[in-house]
Amino acid sequence: MNTPVDAPETRRRGRAARRRERLATPLVSLPTLVRNIPLYEVLDAEGVELIHEESMKILEEAGIDFRDAEALEYWKQAGAEIDGQLVRIPRELLLGLVATTPEEFTLHARNPAHSVRIGGRNTVFVPTYGSPYVLDRAHERRYSTLADLEEFHKLAYMLPALHLTGGITCEPVDLPVPRRHLHIAYSALKHSDKPYMGATVAKERAEDNVAMAGLVFGEDFVRDNPVMVSVCNCNSPRVWDETMLDAVKVYARSNQPVLLSPFVLAGASTPASSVGAVAQLNAEALAGIAFSQLVNPGAPMIYGQFLATVSMRSGAPMAGTPEISLMNFMVGQMARRYRLPWRSSGMTAGSKLVDAQAAYEASMTMQSVLLAGANFVFHAAGWLEGGMTASFAKFLLDAEQLEMYYRFGEGPKLDDLAAAMAALREVPPGGHYLGTAHTRENFQTAFFMPELLDNNSWDQWAAEGSLDATTRALAKCEEMLARYEAPALDAGVDEALRAFIRRREAELPEGVE
Amino acid sequence: MNTPVDAPETRRRGRAARRRERLATPLVSLPTLVRNIPLYEVLDAEGVELIHEESMKILEEAGIDFRDAEALEYWKQAGAEIDGQLVRIPRELLLGLVATTPEEFTLHARNPAHSVRIGGRNTVFVPTYGSPYVLDRAHERRYSTLADLEEFHKLAYMLPALHLTGGITCEPVDLPVPRRHLHIAYSALKHSDKPYMGATVAKERAEDNVAMAGLVFGEDFVRDNPVMVSVCNCNSPRVWDETMLDAVKVYARSNQPVLLSPFVLAGASTPASSVGAVAQLNAEALAGIAFSQLVNPGAPMIYGQFLATVSMRSGAPMAGTPEISLMNFMVGQMARRYRLPWRSSGMTAGSKLVDAQAAYEASMTMQSVLLAGANFVFHAAGWLEGGMTASFAKFLLDAEQLEMYYRFGEGPKLDDLAAAMAALREVPPGGHYLGTAHTRENFQTAFFMPELLDNNSWDQWAAEGSLDATTRALAKCEEMLARYEAPALDAGVDEALRAFIRRREAELPEGVE
Repeated sequence: MNTPVDAPETRRRGRAARRRERLATPLVSLPTLVRNIPLYEVLDAEGVELIHEESMKILEEAGIDFRDAEALEYWKQAGAEIDGQLVRIPRELLLGLVATTPEEFTLHARNPAHSVRIGGRNTVFVPTYGSPYVLDRAHERRYSTLADLEEFHKLAYMLPALHLTGGITCEPVDLPVPRRHLHIAYSALKHSDKPYMGATVAKERAEDNVAMAGLVFGEDFVRDNPVMVSVCNCNSPRVWDETMLDAVKVYARSNQPVLLSPFVLAGASTPASSVGAVAQLNAEALAGIAFSQLVNPGAPMIYGQFLATVSMRSGAPMAGTPEISLMNFMVGQMARRYRLPWRSSGMTAGSKLVDAQAAYEASMTMQSVLLAGANFVFHAAGWLEGGMTASFAKFLLDAEQLEMYYRFGEGPKLDDLAAAMAALREVPPGGHYLGTAHTRENFQTAFFMPELLDNNSWDQWAAEGSLDATTRALAKCEEMLARYEAPALDAGVDEALRAFIRRREAELPEGVE
Repeated sequence: MNTPVDAPETRRRGRAARRRERLATPLVSLPTLVRNIPLYEVLDAEGVELIHEESMKILEEAGIDFRDAEALEYWKQAGAEIDGQLVRIPRELLLGLVATTPEEFTLHARNPAHSVRIGGRNTVFVPTYGSPYVLDRAHERRYSTLADLEEFHKLAYMLPALHLTGGITCEPVDLPVPRRHLHIAYSALKHSDKPYMGATVAKERAEDNVAMAGLVFGEDFVRDNPVMVSVCNCNSPRVWDETMLDAVKVYARSNQPVLLSPFVLAGASTPASSVGAVAQLNAEALAGIAFSQLVNPGAPMIYGQFLATVSMRSGAPMAGTPEISLMNFMVGQMARRYRLPWRSSGMTAGSKLVDAQAAYEASMTMQSVLLAGANFVFHAAGWLEGGMTASFAKFLLDAEQLEMYYRFGEGPKLDDLAAAMAALREVPPGGHYLGTAHTRENFQTAFFMPELLDNNSWDQWAAEGSLDATTRALAKCEEMLARYEAPALDAGVDEALRAFIRRREAELPEGVE
């Protein structure tokens, strides 16, 4: 956010003054972005129908594996054709189920001021997820811990354009696997009052998440209202496995939304064709959505995908490629064809460092995803090294970029034109506008002023230590964590959460079962 | 470009093998990008007309300074209202003149295979311009020299997605100011056979440029055919000065196109309003275009602008802000309203280093400019520090990004869908596509494989020295310059150019007049 200043002529002030200003700045949280810019669509109506038709044929003829007995029973009862684990779904059945999914819904935060809308013209930005490593505050790469995760949750709470606290921003690998989900949920609920994300890797972990949400929001409230979002991946090509389906069932029954996301490595897990990859992932995502509606018709769900392209030279997944952008535009159009809220990924990068590569990659995809109309922009801050690493520096740099994309998404403001034209008439040819009344009235809001992007002269920048963006971001990280104050949480609720964790820890094993 | 390989399973080969491959790769030059993606437009038709109306009122009522006696005489003869240096132009006069400007034209290269189309659905990418400093091949910032400039021209010749050689990519400050233009033009003509850019800072320098082009292309050819592009800035607000107008006159009479570009620091040289800034720069650019048509009706010209927003906190110009993107979308719509070829700027950055900041800034603007439909994307490689510095590393990194934007601009390929769907049926659920015939046939072209973006595993990357993108780009720079071979240039033409330079150097002073 732009820090308020006294007057436009207050230039080139010292770092200390700017620091004092930042410390005095109250927390700002941007509400849901209601996009006021057009959608960018690369397919015409015929192209959308062509992909739709191929997806329907994949579902009807090739089929999708549902590797879970209960799921197969659901499909059998519904009238799908079962062949071992392979389910062939007639399009009428599929589209009827998809149509019961809400087009738009409210995701509730424990602080109602931070609740957001999912779907339609709304867009929310969500932190990275699932990295086993961090590029830490000393810019060292190492396994991540619960302490790192807590810091990411605190930062997400403080950063204006992050709408969700996130979930497993990084894996707390210092905790036993079977118990991690308890501490992840507690950290997200304790350190932030924005909406958060649930765990999905097993049935009882999903149940624990729903139970903990009940302690905070009330069991009745959670039964009918989305309070967290979880992510379940389809194993492309064409497999929904038991672990994921178990979590889908728990969350669907609890009316808690899930990102039903084919994890696509285009070229390896899909044909070597962008449009072919979209036809496949569309079929996979729709099969997941339809299944969720078999379990609980009307449960809020989010259609989506994770997209990387594979280097045919090295086999490595790539980020920030043009095909990822093109596929995002196509997938967005497919999601809207079915009137489904749509999840994509924003600031993905393959780089090992927060260098130029990381920013080129992240920006290439992020701008496309915004213009493509994604509703839930996952991995919108901190993602590095193909998701293996969560970076504190990139978390802050991405988050500032998101403030800019937010502004961008609000679109041009034409109502100011008459006043601006009056100002023009006050300024002679060759003059400047800094002293006009119009400028004085608008200087705080007319143009976004980033804090982490240095626009000083070379001399001024050199005098301040010739710091690169990554170093400046880490310095801001320290500042923010130093002034962090936890949002209020009722002491009784806090104790109930802790008691729940103690009880479950006594029941759960220390190692992986 | 994707380097050809033998088979998709040839993974993780050594650096030496990849280097041999690159050395054996023939030069590739991408033709003009004919955009096969939709235009992105943020204004509705009413918004375009609103801005048009305000621009017309600026021209009719507020007026534009033309600080040149001959220019004022042109306007007087045409029937405009002259008030000192201020010219008020009735819209009928202005729009009639604008309408004589060609909507699209060919810019000829001395190698016809490298000629490009300007205007319409065509887009070309052009190097940065005018920096007094370089961030050199040892990554040191220092004043630039002719040797640096020659290297930039060589690199532009070799880089696939740069359509023009450029002109003053960096200032050869080791040469006397009055003689520099001769050596800049010679370097561009000698070291590359792509189209190039002319000098504009004085009448006789423009004349020298036209004369030198005549020695290469033939005087008759140059009289009727565009062979170089020059840039003339309007000094916003509302001033076209004598130096620039003198160059416009020379080039217009020679049918050589000029970028008629208001240099906009939005908030300082325009109102503190994005839409107000667009209304003003639109009036300024149209006045320049109209003037060129007074001089020579039908002369090819390019409407355009340079855009930065000003930090109201520090007074510094900023790059990569959301308002720059929004203004670009609006300006593109205005250019199309008048059926004019449109120039914008692509990879601009305020950063002092080739760090994450530089890439965030450059990418934010570049993607917008492509989707906005810019025909001539100036500053598309190498720009740093608000244009004060040209960076070799960023030149190469940006140029690879441009290959990706080129691919993006070609749009999705739907004709492959049936074949991709056949491949899908060969691969069982949970399988992979790497062995299918479809993948073998498409692996070289399906997904762009960047060379400077590292997508190896962390271990592999660490084993190769943990290099950041900037260091890798500088290594590639050395490799490219080592294998550079000059394009053929007729020995007689070469000697004629040298003789011209010798003669003019004998006439021209060593210092600034």
